[in-house]
Amino acid sequence: MPTAILNDYLRRAIERKDYQAVRQFLEEFQAVDLAELLQTEPAETARELLMHLPVAQRASVFGHLPSDWQAQLTATMTDKEVSQLLRHLDADEGADLLHVLPEDRHDLVLRNIAHAEREALRRLASYEEGTAGAIMTSDYMTVPAEINAGEALNVIRKSAPSAELIYQIYTVDTQYRLIGTLSLRELIMNKPEALIKDLMTTDMVKTTLSAKQEEAAKLISRYDLLSLPVVDDEGHLVGIITYDDAMDVAEAEATEDMHKSATVGPLAGNFRDAKLLTLYRKRIVWLLLLVFGNLISGAGIAYYEETIAAYVVLVFFLPLLIDSGGNAGSQAATLVIRSMATGDVALSDWRKLLLKEVAVASGLGLTMAAAVSVIGAYRGGFDIAWVVALSMICIVMTGSLVGLCLPFILDRLDWDPATASAPLVTTIADASGVLIYFWIATWILHLPAP
Amino acid sequence: MPTAILNDYLRRAIERKDYQAVRQFLEEFQAVDLAELLQTEPAETARELLMHLPVAQRASVFGHLPSDWQAQLTATMTDKEVSQLLRHLDADEGADLLHVLPEDRHDLVLRNIAHAEREALRRLASYEEGTAGAIMTSDYMTVPAEINAGEALNVIRKSAPSAELIYQIYTVDTQYRLIGTLSLRELIMNKPEALIKDLMTTDMVKTTLSAKQEEAAKLISRYDLLSLPVVDDEGHLVGIITYDDAMDVAEAEATEDMHKSATVGPLAGNFRDAKLLTLYRKRIVWLLLLVFGNLISGAGIAYYEETIAAYVVLVFFLPLLIDSGGNAGSQAATLVIRSMATGDVALSDWRKLLLKEVAVASGLGLTMAAAVSVIGAYRGGFDIAWVVALSMICIVMTGSLVGLCLPFILDRLDWDPATASAPLVTTIADASGVLIYFWIATWILHLPAP
Repeated sequence: MPTAILNDYLRRAIERKDYQAVRQFLEEFQAVDLAELLQTEPAETARELLMHLPVAQRASVFGHLPSDWQAQLTATMTDKEVSQLLRHLDADEGADLLHVLPEDRHDLVLRNIAHAEREALRRLASYEEGTAGAIMTSDYMTVPAEINAGEALNVIRKSAPSAELIYQIYTVDTQYRLIGTLSLRELIMNKPEALIKDLMTTDMVKTTLSAKQEEAAKLISRYDLLSLPVVDDEGHLVGIITYDDAMDVAEAEATEDMHKSATVGPLAGNFRDAKLLTLYRKRIVWLLLLVFGNLISGAGIAYYEETIAAYVVLVFFLPLLIDSGGNAGSQAATLVIRSMATGDVALSDWRKLLLKEVAVASGLGLTMAAAVSVIGAYRGGFDIAWVVALSMICIVMTGSLVGLCLPFILDRLDWDPATASAPLVTTIADASGVLIYFWIATWILHLPAP
Repeated sequence: MPTAILNDYLRRAIERKDYQAVRQFLEEFQAVDLAELLQTEPAETARELLMHLPVAQRASVFGHLPSDWQAQLTATMTDKEVSQLLRHLDADEGADLLHVLPEDRHDLVLRNIAHAEREALRRLASYEEGTAGAIMTSDYMTVPAEINAGEALNVIRKSAPSAELIYQIYTVDTQYRLIGTLSLRELIMNKPEALIKDLMTTDMVKTTLSAKQEEAAKLISRYDLLSLPVVDDEGHLVGIITYDDAMDVAEAEATEDMHKSATVGPLAGNFRDAKLLTLYRKRIVWLLLLVFGNLISGAGIAYYEETIAAYVVLVFFLPLLIDSGGNAGSQAATLVIRSMATGDVALSDWRKLLLKEVAVASGLGLTMAAAVSVIGAYRGGFDIAWVVALSMICIVMTGSLVGLCLPFILDRLDWDPATASAPLVTTIADASGVLIYFWIATWILHLPAP
């Protein structure tokens, strides 16, 4: 994107105070693109550009900014300006905005907002991060079950401006308990006289306030929903999660899992803009933990120092053997972790997968043993070839089984299976690989046990 | 899911030929759940259950089955039964069905289908896998730009049954070139007399037939679209991609990237049901390639055999040092690869990120050097501590920079950056780590160069 040229054009228009040109220019962009463009500017310029936008577009762009930018920008806005934004943001984005505002501004910015909306915002902002409650919106559409399709269409025409998504409509009873749902498609395809209660389906997919956000996103993706209703413990409809938010959640979850697979802690923003200290902190913890894991490998080597001194050639094969175990283990762990995340594999599948992994890993181990035994024979003769080949089979099997089982064990302990990262599996496979290798070497080469 | 109980109930109902009970039972399920249930049955039972469903639900369930199941089931169906399915499947699912049918049945099953629909199916089935063309559907809704909102609503009411998604509506000119779009929401919110050409927006996000499917999915997610229009080289509207297919593509892409990060080749189906030989083949290739990569580490060790023989204690720190470089490198590579996949980082960002990585990696290296120097001093005295600490800094820096740069280099060469898997980075970091470590040791310990 030729961002520099755009910025240049904009800056010149601002300098000569040609605000109409600025506005015309900005209005051509999609909100998400504009939000990205603003982030390449200093906060002061970004604020000025934002303020030149009509308020609806301003809110839309603002909703796409990351939270640190939202915090920075609102810090320089008046309470009235923030209120104005709040009124035009979708309810879920408004709740996110409350999160970035200092507590003492909440009352000030909410003062100018209608009672019902204010309470909805406060309530949305109160749900714990990572739950369905925290990503749902209260801007949904309900119609009474007793009216007919024509009347319902009129209700929608009247209240649609405040709803985020009008294509899935819900019905509630007098206690506001969720009783059914129908799509706008069904509504307009049926006769105006048809009653909602006859058109709606009562057998619907829903979730609860405290459900994990990734579980909610998975339901939306699995059942191809446009929106997923969220109910509280008594079955009252309290919000909906829309498909676009589900896409964002799924992407964020995949990113987090991928980072975990390489022992990087969860990053709040994106990698390109992450601060140095943040990156350092998210990476150092596991690197240090793994150092201590690797000391076990070191201790294994120290234990077999005599064996090594007698056959220094054994060290030649050390990285190759232990890495192979780690690599096979990383493969197995990644396959299991991802299948668990997408819901293809459950805890109860472990037995079936273990048997399969034994078969696959034997095949892998045998193939690799054949490959390295040739090199072993060339470098150290028949005995070494035999040691290396046998070690390879055992190490690849061990690594694979560690990789397969660790995510299941972590899941069973209610930990995140994604913690079974490639580096963790590699470290465990390394330590066991060292012991296996030198034990086999000591045995086959008839060396004295240490 | 207590699948066994469900299956048992079903089987007994079938045995006593109580088909009404079977149908009632099956109709309570969502199509995707039923598809999953069927896959736990032998193909023969699955086929029988499927045939007990009303044809619309049958098609819906069938569309959720994986392609090997579709192939197996259609093999036992008559051409007429397949035709019936084809008529009730969404166009994109119908095209997928053609893919699993043997070529010689295409004409037979298409014979009973209306000309226009038949041509659309053939055309959809002809696009290359992985492109926007291959995942789009031809069941979209167009209205003329010259009519008004009320008339458009009538057009939609008439043609909606055949459209997959009616919430985003397109307008085309007489040559069928895409000229605008509007949402059903805008349509029903405006006065019936308002003209479509005044309501529609002409500035819309679209993609081309040959665009990569993940790029199309990214557009849908970025702009929160319900559907993305696909045009050919002359700008003719040829199909739309719906949000639910975009979700599936995004999930499949994330899975593929995650598998690649652990050197597992792309699996067509899911891991739990993958065949042994498939799993073996998808894993062995890189494992063997990496064995040869590890031989470089071995050669490095062989080259410094004298150094090792003089100070066997050095081997104690070998796994720890080279693993640390690999781990830091995997972290950097994963951060870059995922950011590239989500579009947060572009090729042009490499310089900025390289500088940042140098800073972060120095911090990581220094911290880890401090940690291991204590152990070094304890195990081998001051000189060894010095060797180990200095090596740690250099190895962590090298590993991190390899991890950061490799995805950029691969991307520049038009390879998939995700090929820079954790095991590949680890292997490169290991080989350079061995050389760095023993070179530093030889130098600081005043040993004769080999």
